[in-house]
Amino acid sequence: MPSPIPSSETGMTQTAIRFFGLGLGPGNPDYMTVRARKVLETADRLAHFCKRGKRGNARTIADAIVGAEPEREIALVYPVTTEIPADHPDYAATLRPFYESAAAQLLAEIEAGRMVALLCEGDPFFYGSFMHLWWRLKDKVPTEIVPAVSGMSAAWTRAGAPITWGDDVLTVVPGTLSEAELTRRLSGTDAAVVMKLGRNLPKVRRALACAGLLERAIYVERATMAEEQIIPLPDLPETTEAPYFSLIIVPGQGRRV
Amino acid sequence: MPSPIPSSETGMTQTAIRFFGLGLGPGNPDYMTVRARKVLETADRLAHFCKRGKRGNARTIADAIVGAEPEREIALVYPVTTEIPADHPDYAATLRPFYESAAAQLLAEIEAGRMVALLCEGDPFFYGSFMHLWWRLKDKVPTEIVPAVSGMSAAWTRAGAPITWGDDVLTVVPGTLSEAELTRRLSGTDAAVVMKLGRNLPKVRRALACAGLLERAIYVERATMAEEQIIPLPDLPETTEAPYFSLIIVPGQGRRV
Repeated sequence: MPSPIPSSETGMTQTAIRFFGLGLGPGNPDYMTVRARKVLETADRLAHFCKRGKRGNARTIADAIVGAEPEREIALVYPVTTEIPADHPDYAATLRPFYESAAAQLLAEIEAGRMVALLCEGDPFFYGSFMHLWWRLKDKVPTEIVPAVSGMSAAWTRAGAPITWGDDVLTVVPGTLSEAELTRRLSGTDAAVVMKLGRNLPKVRRALACAGLLERAIYVERATMAEEQIIPLPDLPETTEAPYFSLIIVPGQGRRV
Repeated sequence: MPSPIPSSETGMTQTAIRFFGLGLGPGNPDYMTVRARKVLETADRLAHFCKRGKRGNARTIADAIVGAEPEREIALVYPVTTEIPADHPDYAATLRPFYESAAAQLLAEIEAGRMVALLCEGDPFFYGSFMHLWWRLKDKVPTEIVPAVSGMSAAWTRAGAPITWGDDVLTVVPGTLSEAELTRRLSGTDAAVVMKLGRNLPKVRRALACAGLLERAIYVERATMAEEQIIPLPDLPETTEAPYFSLIIVPGQGRRV
């Protein structure tokens, strides 16, 4: 059962929504939606994921709108999983209790009558960590997802590179796949986006070369933000490890009239 | 050379941008970006594509913000191409002079000192008609693309269906491809979006069935708008032709922690 469609006329108060998956977009506050701004300004609690000792990526995006308001903030601090591959049983064994506990914490806030927004970088339902809490809370509390401009859209926009023309097929792959699997998925597609680069960058580059797409690939980092970098992938130094907020696009070459 | 990053502090006037590819998002005005609202309110001319005797889809989205302002509006009326397949030479032969003439019309406005925004439904650089004018004008006038929430993001958000989890691969295909090609591209993907349904809907349904994805497919029409329809594809009547603003999503089933 979908939540009611937001309406500028009815505003926030008419709905009984208590939990928001709040998509904040790619980084630039001008690219937040009107809805996102409104929820950001009115929610009783702003929750965000972060690593120990660091501010969360989504919380950083909100900085332009929300100052230091300790009474509204809930930091959900990830357990350390950097050294555990995501397909290893220890990964789920470490993260599952964290998500369970985070969901319980937000549920307690909601049951105490507060409107809770979980801040999400990019678009919440597109590879979002938020989904792991949504999954646990969606049947317990009235929930609304606020869609957002995705990081990949920001990347092709800022690179000045339309991603799909005419009948182009677009393939979106996470860089976490094996090199063979990446090569297989990328071969024969018209346009591509590679998410989740990080330490996978050298492997992704090899797979793109194998698939014949390296020459057309563009590396985009922190699209729409002040430290934005846009570099043809063949020109990117080989040793680079990609930071968060980075991805690779391969623009399509389909029908132009 | 990318355009300057928009900034709430510097605002519109500091840039020399004269031409905007203005992404308005999926339909609900609350899902426009702050940037899109600003350009919509301040541009001297609002251009939009439309069919003869009809209002354009993008212009309809702007209705909530922009009333009847004949002095600001430029309607770019498509020649009739409904009966010509897009891969037939007559298609390009009909559309090319139209795009050339539309580009010349907008260029004349810009050279007369006006700031022109071409309204785009969805995200401008994702299968956008706008791209055919951008291609002709980008080296002649300073241009800014305003990215937007895509129609597919609105669809998976409103369907309450996260599209990609963990290592899921997403394949986006236009329904205009042949049935064999659709089947080939959809087979083995984890998640899918089918764009450009229209009269292709029966063919797309057969291809999804062949690829083993029919049972998980969801038909979404006018997501985020008042007449929104969300129907599991197997339950959709066989004879239906899909209207504009419709697509099919197949949510991924990847790793959930």
